Amino acid sequence: MSFRAVFYLVVISKKGKLMKNNLHAQMEVSDKLKEECGVFGIYDFDGNDVASTIYYGLFALQHRGQESCGIAVSDTKGPKGVVQSYKGMGLVNEVFTEDTFDNMKGDIGVGHVRYSTAGASSRENAQPLVLNYIKGTLALAHNGNLINAVRLREELAYDGAIFQTTIDSEVIAYHIARARVKTATVEEAVLHAMKKVEGAYSLVVMSPRKLIGARDPYGFKPLCIGKRDNAYIITSETCALDTIGAEFVRDVLPGEIVTITKDGIKSDTSMCLPAEKEARCIFEYIYFARPDSRIDGRSVYHSRILAGRYLAMDSPVEADLVVGVPESGNAAALGYSLESGIPYGTAFVKNGYVGRTFIKPKQSSRESSVRVKLNVLKEAVEGKRIIMIDDSIVRGTTSDRIVSMLKEAGAKEVHMRVSSPPFLWPCYFGTDVPAREQLIAYNRTIEEIREMIGADSLGYLKTERLEQLTGGLPICKGCFTGNYPLDPPEDDIRGDFEK
Amino acid sequence: MSFRAVFYLVVISKKGKLMKNNLHAQMEVSDKLKEECGVFGIYDFDGNDVASTIYYGLFALQHRGQESCGIAVSDTKGPKGVVQSYKGMGLVNEVFTEDTFDNMKGDIGVGHVRYSTAGASSRENAQPLVLNYIKGTLALAHNGNLINAVRLREELAYDGAIFQTTIDSEVIAYHIARARVKTATVEEAVLHAMKKVEGAYSLVVMSPRKLIGARDPYGFKPLCIGKRDNAYIITSETCALDTIGAEFVRDVLPGEIVTITKDGIKSDTSMCLPAEKEARCIFEYIYFARPDSRIDGRSVYHSRILAGRYLAMDSPVEADLVVGVPESGNAAALGYSLESGIPYGTAFVKNGYVGRTFIKPKQSSRESSVRVKLNVLKEAVEGKRIIMIDDSIVRGTTSDRIVSMLKEAGAKEVHMRVSSPPFLWPCYFGTDVPAREQLIAYNRTIEEIREMIGADSLGYLKTERLEQLTGGLPICKGCFTGNYPLDPPEDDIRGDFEK
Amino acid sequence: MSFRAVFYLVVISKKGKLMKNNLHAQMEVSDKLKEECGVFGIYDFDGNDVASTIYYGLFALQHRGQESCGIAVSDTKGPKGVVQSYKGMGLVNEVFTEDTFDNMKGDIGVGHVRYSTAGASSRENAQPLVLNYIKGTLALAHNGNLINAVRLREELAYDGAIFQTTIDSEVIAYHIARARVKTATVEEAVLHAMKKVEGAYSLVVMSPRKLIGARDPYGFKPLCIGKRDNAYIITSETCALDTIGAEFVRDVLPGEIVTITKDGIKSDTSMCLPAEKEARCIFEYIYFARPDSRIDGRSVYHSRILAGRYLAMDSPVEADLVVGVPESGNAAALGYSLESGIPYGTAFVKNGYVGRTFIKPKQSSRESSVRVKLNVLKEAVEGKRIIMIDDSIVRGTTSDRIVSMLKEAGAKEVHMRVSSPPFLWPCYFGTDVPAREQLIAYNRTIEEIREMIGADSLGYLKTERLEQLTGGLPICKGCFTGNYPLDPPEDDIRGDFEK
Amino acid sequence: MSFRAVFYLVVISKKGKLMKNNLHAQMEVSDKLKEECGVFGIYDFDGNDVASTIYYGLFALQHRGQESCGIAVSDTKGPKGVVQSYKGMGLVNEVFTEDTFDNMKGDIGVGHVRYSTAGASSRENAQPLVLNYIKGTLALAHNGNLINAVRLREELAYDGAIFQTTIDSEVIAYHIARARVKTATVEEAVLHAMKKVEGAYSLVVMSPRKLIGARDPYGFKPLCIGKRDNAYIITSETCALDTIGAEFVRDVLPGEIVTITKDGIKSDTSMCLPAEKEARCIFEYIYFARPDSRIDGRSVYHSRILAGRYLAMDSPVEADLVVGVPESGNAAALGYSLESGIPYGTAFVKNGYVGRTFIKPKQSSRESSVRVKLNVLKEAVEGKRIIMIDDSIVRGTTSDRIVSMLKEAGAKEVHMRVSSPPFLWPCYFGTDVPAREQLIAYNRTIEEIREMIGADSLGYLKTERLEQLTGGLPICKGCFTGNYPLDPPEDDIRGDFEK
Repeated sequence: MSFRAVFYLVVISKKGKLMKNNLHAQMEVSDKLKEECGVFGIYDFDGNDVASTIYYGLFALQHRGQESCGIAVSDTKGPKGVVQSYKGMGLVNEVFTEDTFDNMKGDIGVGHVRYSTAGASSRENAQPLVLNYIKGTLALAHNGNLINAVRLREELAYDGAIFQTTIDSEVIAYHIARARVKTATVEEAVLHAMKKVEGAYSLVVMSPRKLIGARDPYGFKPLCIGKRDNAYIITSETCALDTIGAEFVRDVLPGEIVTITKDGIKSDTSMCLPAEKEARCIFEYIYFARPDSRIDGRSVYHSRILAGRYLAMDSPVEADLVVGVPESGNAAALGYSLESGIPYGTAFVKNGYVGRTFIKPKQSSRESSVRVKLNVLKEAVEGKRIIMIDDSIVRGTTSDRIVSMLKEAGAKEVHMRVSSPPFLWPCYFGTDVPAREQLIAYNRTIEEIREMIGADSLGYLKTERLEQLTGGLPICKGCFTGNYPLDPPEDDIRGDFEK
Repeated sequence: MSFRAVFYLVVISKKGKLMKNNLHAQMEVSDKLKEECGVFGIYDFDGNDVASTIYYGLFALQHRGQESCGIAVSDTKGPKGVVQSYKGMGLVNEVFTEDTFDNMKGDIGVGHVRYSTAGASSRENAQPLVLNYIKGTLALAHNGNLINAVRLREELAYDGAIFQTTIDSEVIAYHIARARVKTATVEEAVLHAMKKVEGAYSLVVMSPRKLIGARDPYGFKPLCIGKRDNAYIITSETCALDTIGAEFVRDVLPGEIVTITKDGIKSDTSMCLPAEKEARCIFEYIYFARPDSRIDGRSVYHSRILAGRYLAMDSPVEADLVVGVPESGNAAALGYSLESGIPYGTAFVKNGYVGRTFIKPKQSSRESSVRVKLNVLKEAVEGKRIIMIDDSIVRGTTSDRIVSMLKEAGAKEVHMRVSSPPFLWPCYFGTDVPAREQLIAYNRTIEEIREMIGADSLGYLKTERLEQLTGGLPICKGCFTGNYPLDPPEDDIRGDFEK
Repeated sequence: MSFRAVFYLVVISKKGKLMKNNLHAQMEVSDKLKEECGVFGIYDFDGNDVASTIYYGLFALQHRGQESCGIAVSDTKGPKGVVQSYKGMGLVNEVFTEDTFDNMKGDIGVGHVRYSTAGASSRENAQPLVLNYIKGTLALAHNGNLINAVRLREELAYDGAIFQTTIDSEVIAYHIARARVKTATVEEAVLHAMKKVEGAYSLVVMSPRKLIGARDPYGFKPLCIGKRDNAYIITSETCALDTIGAEFVRDVLPGEIVTITKDGIKSDTSMCLPAEKEARCIFEYIYFARPDSRIDGRSVYHSRILAGRYLAMDSPVEADLVVGVPESGNAAALGYSLESGIPYGTAFVKNGYVGRTFIKPKQSSRESSVRVKLNVLKEAVEGKRIIMIDDSIVRGTTSDRIVSMLKEAGAKEVHMRVSSPPFLWPCYFGTDVPAREQLIAYNRTIEEIREMIGADSLGYLKTERLEQLTGGLPICKGCFTGNYPLDPPEDDIRGDFEK
Repeated sequence: MSFRAVFYLVVISKKGKLMKNNLHAQMEVSDKLKEECGVFGIYDFDGNDVASTIYYGLFALQHRGQESCGIAVSDTKGPKGVVQSYKGMGLVNEVFTEDTFDNMKGDIGVGHVRYSTAGASSRENAQPLVLNYIKGTLALAHNGNLINAVRLREELAYDGAIFQTTIDSEVIAYHIARARVKTATVEEAVLHAMKKVEGAYSLVVMSPRKLIGARDPYGFKPLCIGKRDNAYIITSETCALDTIGAEFVRDVLPGEIVTITKDGIKSDTSMCLPAEKEARCIFEYIYFARPDSRIDGRSVYHSRILAGRYLAMDSPVEADLVVGVPESGNAAALGYSLESGIPYGTAFVKNGYVGRTFIKPKQSSRESSVRVKLNVLKEAVEGKRIIMIDDSIVRGTTSDRIVSMLKEAGAKEVHMRVSSPPFLWPCYFGTDVPAREQLIAYNRTIEEIREMIGADSLGYLKTERLEQLTGGLPICKGCFTGNYPLDPPEDDIRGDFEK
């Protein structure tokens, strides 16, 4: 029944620029990178209420953001400008109740799930952003990160704009609103806005009579189109389509604006780049996306199986059993097993009730948070040489404990294989990466890392293999190489990343 | 843990103007007009945290708004631009918990309590409005109603503004922000904004290093300055000063901008009008303000005693007992008793637990909502001729039931006296008035009203007496006379009020 | 969604007796004694659902207990033994929601509001007590305090009983259950139980087809019968009847068992004592009961007016104004004014939003909790000699502050009058009294008390006047005199009260 | 902040017996049997607080009950009889908050997780049961089902007992309390109670200075002892020991009473039966227990691998891939793969956020609840002949949909194998089984079942194999054979099960 607003420090840099301060969360979490968002939009031409379908869609996208979520709907047959929205902090099934849907009538709508760094984890920042502007109302849901948001905010502010959130959607909304004064259609205004903003964005916009999807020219983040009966869907991943029983139509192209009205799908590809300049986030394939999704025609599951196979080719070792660190290491483990012929098995039992809200009583410090989540199947590993596959090592805070647990349970050897290259550089395009000095691979050799985690051997996926995972689709591998498809912002406050 | 946004219809009128749609609440409530807000700002030069003092201040102003409330604070010694705010739907002691204050560190802050009509009763609209603009952050708390807000929104929208709330504070904030690009100080920007906005407003603004109070040139709504040790307070009513143990310094003048910094109080009176053009809301004296407050040097309690005395002079009647309808009729009843010599007494017991959240189970319809709140003291009224005083009759929905209850309890006669004139016209300046056809006095003679409520006689305060209640301070009595100090908006959607 | 059970120390005393440990609450509360409970039972022969009517009834009884409340209903036409109950910590309008009533179907039911000392303030102890026994189900709601509960628990325990609460109702329930094995009817079993239990109790019992009311032979606590259409009500106070629109039928006699079935009201008076042995709690008339209630035919309001009149006769003083400390001092103040001819007035404004849940932020210690609740009407008291009436002084913790506030506001003299005698002894019959050394009147002369509170004079009601307040009805005045109608328990743990 | 009590129908049967009415839940749930409880007790001789350790233990046992949970602790060094308990509806991490533990001080305690059928799913029935009796306080946590509870309640009721819950623990508590009047120690009283009660129970009892564990003579439910530093633990499964970092000491023997005091572990085996009469619940090995637990020295994981191996031996089929229905079918699938040499793979992605509180908006009926939980990995199954392993088929409501999903995704053949025999008979010992006519195997041939679920072939584990799963430990396989180690209750209300 209440919410909190926090505006953090806005500093003027030496060069006179406003800089955003992303405070990094310090919670002890699993040693994983965080995806920042998932989006879902739908327009039902038969006039059925769509809020509950958005709910199911967001539920399928929950892995893309567990911090807040929201739904906004409108009735295209009702008076223009009435938008009903409901947002909250928490998981989809925590925020929405049956009552929510009683008040959410409308045949067009957008939804959003969100993760963010601590500084901006306030309720105001929950999406979709719902607003009133010259042409009525808009609702925006956005996945990605703009690299020129700080400068754009500054420019807008110099022109008298006020900001009530710290999310990029507000910047995009302003540009749409300013362009809309002059454009004939809202999709043209979106195009104008796209010419201003730089970075990663997959966007779903609801206007009173149109549903619009837009994807940045690099295609960092996925966005696809689906159809169920007479309803069209624009969403982050195909698994959301499967969940609601919709069929996949096609991916939104990098740089494309898709406009869905009663008259069908309209496409504007004027912002598209030559294919070779595209830069899909490779981490979507490696870890972020659900394995049952296909991104730009490429099965995520298949990419992970491949990663395991390449590991087996490039870092072979003699062993009795290949196991994955649940859940995200399982597919690559299977790939390793298939390639190497070493049997696949299960070494861990994961407590299925571990969730976002698990509290840690101060009373006791004896219980380890890794043990609470994972237990070893002694019977499965005792006396065996184990190959243990995980999708990535970020800080390395849990890998050593998992290796120890295997050894305590009687494993003779533990060989760790990682289905991505060492993680070395910041991401400017929507992934929450810890400061560089917290990265285990920073300034360390592989042998040093191996020693830290106590494994008998350690192998990473080779950077050269990354393109093979997507079958040649151009990717962004900046976090492994430091080479980005777009120049990072000059005054980046994230880092003393020497670049 | 969640909130709801609703944007209601924004229609373009025939004349091309945007019109705001204020849906009126349909809840069965007490037959009273609703004040729309209370504000409280404080700056402690000793650097003490002020959030809890704002809490106590808002608690003293709770009668000015029970729908939502909020507090925003900042630390003037800390980095510029960090504002902590917390808002919620409900009463002050429902929204804030001890935990709230753990995170609310700061020596400067503003708070707000709010009532609104149903359409805008969403969490987004809770105040203070906290925002980021060209010069850092602002927090605004506002009491009153602008009459040109719709037009100003329209103008801003044509210039690319986006609106995330439907409150007037957002319009004021935009004008401050736009002016601030060019002005040397924030108080100058406030002055610019005041030149644009028209209507009633008592405003408290917190900027990173200044606390600013502003009152519209007509002085519709009260605003006063207090001091406790080295802390200055700007708030709606003096009762908030008493509650926190502060002393009253002075009222903010109609039209004045007061700026509080480390260097003291600075005053800008360039917007002040000649005193005779001022137009204080007379209903503050009659009903809205707490009786222990003084507005512009005039005791509210004293005004109410006077109103009772005038009623006794102008509408005398023989009787055995004078009673007030609790609580707001008691002071005038005492005045009537003092003037007439007829003993004062108590006729009603009010259930002290009646609150905002009283639910009405559907199961039963036998129980009357008046009886749940009030019961008659049979012993006090049996066989007596009663003069019953209330401060106003709006719709008249409860007066008849209260008269009946007195008669059923054995009262021989019930003479109703009302300490304000018949209520006939809409208010454009911050009071929520029902549609004209719902007003009992509309198109009815006093005799007809008397008959409707079943009283043996009925007397209203004479309009001529109103100025006497404030000892000659110029007032707005538009709701009784239809003559307003400012022209109401042309495209007023409130009414088929033939004017 | 969760509850807490606490079983506090059960010690075997030197004499081999179990002793109950009533921990006294240490919250800073108003300086008032606490009533312990209110009960409400109803049986609707037309078969209407009664849960919502119980809700309204409990709402009218809220002043009798603000800590927890509960409702249990049954359908006399349905299968025997199905009881739906809902209980919770908090006020009636906090605990019950509209949803509650959807599941509460039944034409017979009981409800309860409760206050308790801290030790037993757990959810388990919320009433009504709902249980299954040899003859199906029972629901009990109880007001009062047994003086032999500890001994009875001990006896039952020696016989193999287990206790899941620390409330007396459980002891009564056991005795009903044990008797019921042998008796033909449940009311006979209640009679058997009444022969065992000693102390104060007003009891409402719901069995599958009967509603039973019972009052202890001394009549400590009130209990009355009402009727609305074809429904009978048994409840603590007549104000609950007024609130639901029922008419008063009669009081339940001290010692009487009243059984309501389809065949009408049956009365068993075999436990009644000679009238002169009855001992109504005089504090019900002075403070506990609502002024609009009548207890045993005597108006509570009238008793309070009388108390004021006697004060004026016995403790006269020259003054300009008589005021009451709101709300409970107002009736006696009016009586004093009527008797003395000194005008009655209002000196205080009470914040109408003060409730159970008012939090005190740790941040600030400047704000006084008395000021938060009460403010003085300076205009009313300035330069005047004030007679200030309160119903009682218990610890005296607030009287001095209120006197100071009046003096600071300009009162020339403050004469305090108290409409009850000095409070000196513990209560064993259902009132929560602080330890004797905390009572301001303990070991102090009136002059010493006057000095402590800073009044110019101080007068208490004479003990001899107490009987006159009830028109001669026999009363218990043990808390003023130390003489009790029943011997207190031998091993009373409450006190080093030298008796 | 509130709770609900419901007492359901207690009918006297023709033979004069009380019968308990277990209403069966109608929620659409996964097609799985429900375990009814998990228990956890601990006594720390070093005096450390144990509440948070119980919390972690219950978290590890969450799979044994998701409906309610509770913790009760006591301080053995403090005054006898003080027990702090906290219970609530929901998952362990929903019910307990950091605040909970601030008030839970004590070095001895018990905890409980619970699932129940709808009728008894009220808050009153949450465990541990905390009570006061002749010797102070007791807290009981119980897993299992008594078959003579109805008769025992009846007998107790005839003797004047009152029941405030409908859980078997209350019956056991009464028998302990009644025996305790005569016995020298609480463990003797437990022994007396064990002589009265019949059925399945694994019990942890906390008395002021002792922790007691007891297991019924048949050993239906698991119970084991662990140790961490100077603390002893008695709990349902060894996975709880691993989670808190304790070492396994030994299992409690069927029929054994274990008493833990400062002086060590004391054992009473007087109720033990000859080993061949023992009757461990085979479903603990097949599905209920966590795979990382060992029950009576036997690895649950190993039992499941074996079940898969036996299926491969007894029901071989040619195929390309063996997959498990997540999570519970995975171990048997691995066993099948190992035995048959057919590769193991993953065919399904399970939404990791599916939990107890997933709501189903009424708005939409298009979304299937199976699809929300599971999606098929098209890439993995396309064009393949699949062997799909699940641990059981109860109603068969989801098997057909899963088979369809595989086929829609392109599987050429789907061969279902079930790692338990067909489920045909009710369970009287603590498992919630649907009515017989709802069981898919009832009155159907295997071929008929196969056709219903649309698989290309279907094979069940042979009943003869069951004993092999436990390596010869005697088991109860009543649900498969109808032969029970104890006679079921005569007046069983569960069934028109013709036996």
